[in-house]
Amino acid sequence: MSRLRFTISMSLDGFVAGPSQSVENPIGIGGMALHDWVFPLAIWREPHGLEDGIVDESTPVVAERLENIGATVMGRNMFGGGPGPWGDEPWNGWWGDDPPFHHPVFVLTHHPREPLVLEGGTTFTFVGDGIESALEQAREAAAGKDVSLAGGAEAARQYLAADLVDVMEISLAPVFLGAGERLFEGLGQGRPELAHTRTVAAPGVTHLRFERA
Amino acid sequence: MSRLRFTISMSLDGFVAGPSQSVENPIGIGGMALHDWVFPLAIWREPHGLEDGIVDESTPVVAERLENIGATVMGRNMFGGGPGPWGDEPWNGWWGDDPPFHHPVFVLTHHPREPLVLEGGTTFTFVGDGIESALEQAREAAAGKDVSLAGGAEAARQYLAADLVDVMEISLAPVFLGAGERLFEGLGQGRPELAHTRTVAAPGVTHLRFERA
Repeated sequence: MSRLRFTISMSLDGFVAGPSQSVENPIGIGGMALHDWVFPLAIWREPHGLEDGIVDESTPVVAERLENIGATVMGRNMFGGGPGPWGDEPWNGWWGDDPPFHHPVFVLTHHPREPLVLEGGTTFTFVGDGIESALEQAREAAAGKDVSLAGGAEAARQYLAADLVDVMEISLAPVFLGAGERLFEGLGQGRPELAHTRTVAAPGVTHLRFERA
Repeated sequence: MSRLRFTISMSLDGFVAGPSQSVENPIGIGGMALHDWVFPLAIWREPHGLEDGIVDESTPVVAERLENIGATVMGRNMFGGGPGPWGDEPWNGWWGDDPPFHHPVFVLTHHPREPLVLEGGTTFTFVGDGIESALEQAREAAAGKDVSLAGGAEAARQYLAADLVDVMEISLAPVFLGAGERLFEGLGQGRPELAHTRTVAAPGVTHLRFERA
């Protein structure tokens, strides 16, 4: 079975991005604190060409997230470039010419656009007919592997509200942003319908895993 | 130094009580799920006259919470009996004739009332002139020991917003209430000004401790 897997870092007060997100500040004011736990890790540093990385309880959790993923779905805000039509010189993502996905990525948008083929096997396909369609296309592209839901918050809320997420892992950072974008907002009672299956306490973060029962 | 210590159970979506709180349902619809982790523990069962309790990673955390507390402050909603004037047959709390506090308790209320002296050393004093006054009276009554902030959410938010809490421990239950009363709401950025000092992962709960730096 090809599962839809979603992982995200969240503050203890429930925010997955700080306020005032912009091209200069893509995860909002203070939002970088959500990710402080990952930067010292060798598993994060080595792909970025950085030395002196460490191994801790988060390492196997991060490694696991990269395994058996055949395609990604993401929201327009996660892909970036601001809302609205794409314009004459369209935004091509945050990740440069060789994005780290190396598989097909499906971007939710109300604004049609031709597919974007980049190096290393990453293609961005822009999907205008909703979250079910994007997931269906991603599942087909994943050819039996799982699909990663990369966020952002709004896209994640739509998939959670529709009960389409099979595995969710919240990396809870013990920080308070005070404002920004909440993940668990307006989902209605009883959502997500997932059971808690694992807690990993690591330096600077607690990873809480939920799976379809 | 007499510290103000605050502990509370919270859902992963940030609620410390479910919706529709009432005398019949004091922590709201679904709110009991916040406390499922505590009921199997011997340290909770034995004082309630129940057998077959267990010991797990939560046991020392719960034991610690009861130590060195000389007085308690709580909000009117936590004391109960609904909002508004006390009436002719006033509500005397949820806890019967011999409440489990065994020390002075200070209740925040806009409605004046004579102190209520119950068995076992528990007295309820009703404080009408604000959170600083209640804390000052509690500190004096505690005679060098710490003061416990017992909740509910509104009283806690007031003390957190005023930066008067010295130790906070969130017992995070891996459940989603979807609606109810949020703890971390409207505090403003940068609050609470407390540093994360400890994580205890236990069955059905993660205890996250924060202290004044």
